[in-house]
Amino acid sequence: MDERRLLELIEQKKYVEIKNELSQMNEVDVAELLDPLDPHMTLLIFRMLPKDLAVEVFSYFSTDQQAGIINSITDKEVEYIMEELFFDDMIDLIEEMPANIVKKILKSAKEEERKLINQFLKYPVDSAGSIMTIEYVDLKKGMTVGEALKHIKETGLSKETIYTCYVTDKKRSLEGIISLRTLVVADEDEILEDIMERDVIKVNTHDDQESTAGLFVKYGFLALPVVDKENRLIGIITVDDIMDVIEQEATEDFQLMAAMSPSEEAYLDTDILTLAKQRLPWLLILMISATFTGRIMIKFENVLASVVILSTFIPMLMDTGGNSGNQSSTLIIRGLAVGEITTHDWLKVLWKEIRISSIVGFALSAVNFIRLILIERVELIIATTVSFTILVTVITAKMVGGTLPLLAKKLKLDPAIMAGPLITTIVDAISLLLYFFIAQKLLGI
Amino acid sequence: MDERRLLELIEQKKYVEIKNELSQMNEVDVAELLDPLDPHMTLLIFRMLPKDLAVEVFSYFSTDQQAGIINSITDKEVEYIMEELFFDDMIDLIEEMPANIVKKILKSAKEEERKLINQFLKYPVDSAGSIMTIEYVDLKKGMTVGEALKHIKETGLSKETIYTCYVTDKKRSLEGIISLRTLVVADEDEILEDIMERDVIKVNTHDDQESTAGLFVKYGFLALPVVDKENRLIGIITVDDIMDVIEQEATEDFQLMAAMSPSEEAYLDTDILTLAKQRLPWLLILMISATFTGRIMIKFENVLASVVILSTFIPMLMDTGGNSGNQSSTLIIRGLAVGEITTHDWLKVLWKEIRISSIVGFALSAVNFIRLILIERVELIIATTVSFTILVTVITAKMVGGTLPLLAKKLKLDPAIMAGPLITTIVDAISLLLYFFIAQKLLGI
Repeated sequence: MDERRLLELIEQKKYVEIKNELSQMNEVDVAELLDPLDPHMTLLIFRMLPKDLAVEVFSYFSTDQQAGIINSITDKEVEYIMEELFFDDMIDLIEEMPANIVKKILKSAKEEERKLINQFLKYPVDSAGSIMTIEYVDLKKGMTVGEALKHIKETGLSKETIYTCYVTDKKRSLEGIISLRTLVVADEDEILEDIMERDVIKVNTHDDQESTAGLFVKYGFLALPVVDKENRLIGIITVDDIMDVIEQEATEDFQLMAAMSPSEEAYLDTDILTLAKQRLPWLLILMISATFTGRIMIKFENVLASVVILSTFIPMLMDTGGNSGNQSSTLIIRGLAVGEITTHDWLKVLWKEIRISSIVGFALSAVNFIRLILIERVELIIATTVSFTILVTVITAKMVGGTLPLLAKKLKLDPAIMAGPLITTIVDAISLLLYFFIAQKLLGI
Repeated sequence: MDERRLLELIEQKKYVEIKNELSQMNEVDVAELLDPLDPHMTLLIFRMLPKDLAVEVFSYFSTDQQAGIINSITDKEVEYIMEELFFDDMIDLIEEMPANIVKKILKSAKEEERKLINQFLKYPVDSAGSIMTIEYVDLKKGMTVGEALKHIKETGLSKETIYTCYVTDKKRSLEGIISLRTLVVADEDEILEDIMERDVIKVNTHDDQESTAGLFVKYGFLALPVVDKENRLIGIITVDDIMDVIEQEATEDFQLMAAMSPSEEAYLDTDILTLAKQRLPWLLILMISATFTGRIMIKFENVLASVVILSTFIPMLMDTGGNSGNQSSTLIIRGLAVGEITTHDWLKVLWKEIRISSIVGFALSAVNFIRLILIERVELIIATTVSFTILVTVITAKMVGGTLPLLAKKLKLDPAIMAGPLITTIVDAISLLLYFFIAQKLLGI
């Protein structure tokens, strides 16, 4: 069913058909279809859906629709949704809803659950704890495979995943994991203790979500257990949530690298004041920093005045320097983000960048020299000055671009701030100084 | 076991201990540990590993180690590895090995398998076909749940995943899917036909891997079926491979956006000539384009000569324009990549950017005006010229930065090329022209 058919059926008031067709569809698609509708219509159709599907669809609605629905339904209905929602989705919901709606939600929760919600709300943003859920399959090491499968059969429907199961002791300490594949393939009589994996890779509630995502990518996990300081199993993180984290972390880096404060909201859904606020601070800082280059030019006014043509090469020199530095910093920032490069590699990086920039700088410099002599027909000494400056600028820019992200990482800053815009501003000043210095020497001003 | 302990044990020739300890570890960690060793030592330890683990470890080795191992082992051992490797890993291997080693590999393959390998090698790079594998669980709709589970128990160990199973007819047409969760929770006597999902989301062999990854992120799938034009099931793609795709596609965009030809190889593993070649072409193009800004300055030499101070603001104006455009283009490029923005939104984007840039431009312009008057103490008319140019430049830059990626997408180019460096070059020229035009008008030159 697509949007047009849905609107047609609504107009003809064929609600039974709507219900039947929606029930066949993936919950993500149903949410996408209903979300843009008028809130009353959404609510009407939402209430007709089979209850299981309805809760799943609910978790994919936009914040506005979710708020509207909770506002309009009975306390009993709220209770049902909260019971059936996975815990991580409920936490996300509570974090995003206005206070009056949170109140309505919490009213439906039992005392014990409310305690758990409070505990989960306290995990730092972007920590493993903030993205985990509590619906995992909990097994005991004394169980046989048959018993474990029976347990999964009875409780499996309400678990976020049943494909990785967790073996814990009485104190909830994590003793091992066992995959459903192992259970299905194994003999019914085998004891979990004998076939479970003990060398479990796990994360702590306060670990960073980006490094957690790195573990998923490295090992290809479907789920990862989250433990507290006492090695008690608190929750699990599943791969579908991690894919969102990977995308979100990359988006954050893209934004930081373009000199913006990062935001999770989609561009089209963000109001212009928020977008302006996201962009203004860095532009301001960079604009003011860029006045240093103006100062340098004022200082060397005599050089510019005596050889006027020199000023016309400044934009090209600055751009080439900025672009060269930008290339290096981007590769290093990305390498750090995906874990291919660590701060220990700084000497390797520096040595690599020196060699690469010598090749690249020499090539650019040569092309420029030939162009200046043959096409622009400037004096030999001017062509030499400009070309030599290119060579030195490219080498400097790549050394700066290659090492500053590593320095940022070492100082526990986000390396992504050491990207194009900031590198450009730094390299601009350096390249101008080099230019005037070389011009003074070669031209004898 | 860490590197130091491994080297210690090697020195003491305690091979049994090495074998026992490695057998407890995750295959990814074993590969990471053995990969940096001397090839002879790697081979020695590799041969001691339990056969199942050995094959898994092999698939995580670097290309060099893989080549070394295949070169040194017997044909029989090659045959075993090829039989046990998942098909997608084998295809990756064949694509990366030198010709003599590919020959040795193909010698071990049966006629039928060789045909299949040839078919898979023909799928376009970055297509769904190029990342799929053939080891899926194939069920028939007439089976009972009990029969299906028995079938999975017997064949499951050699499948890439058993968590999503595929129901096909005699002609291999995909009729439905069923998750292992559904099977485990269902009654033994139920017939697959009655409980399988028929509304299957699937991709075609020639679909792009980036849009395929988008489906995984949107729906949270663990696996996705790949069909040919006749809806025959050819293979499946699993989420662990998709995580690599997501990272790789983001890395590609980072590189393109920093004016480099994209490369999949890790920075530290790439030789400097390759890295230089990756960076030089765009730097060259941008350097030559930047000479246009020089031309513009030569054309307005009289303006620069009559009011010398004007030239000192050029770097700041160009940087601010470039940074503003870069912010907008980055947001749009990323929005297009993750599917939040489509080319149909171009009018919305343009209108949004006009409003945002007016706010941002006005703020920057005001700060700059105050700074010029109070701190730099320049003439009122100069301060007005520079500040007004900032406002107009920022608005223009954001309109250009916001729309060019959409235009690229419309022209079926990669939007990521319309990023910082190219936008900067374009905006540089525009902002210089605006600057001189405004200066001429306001200063009456």
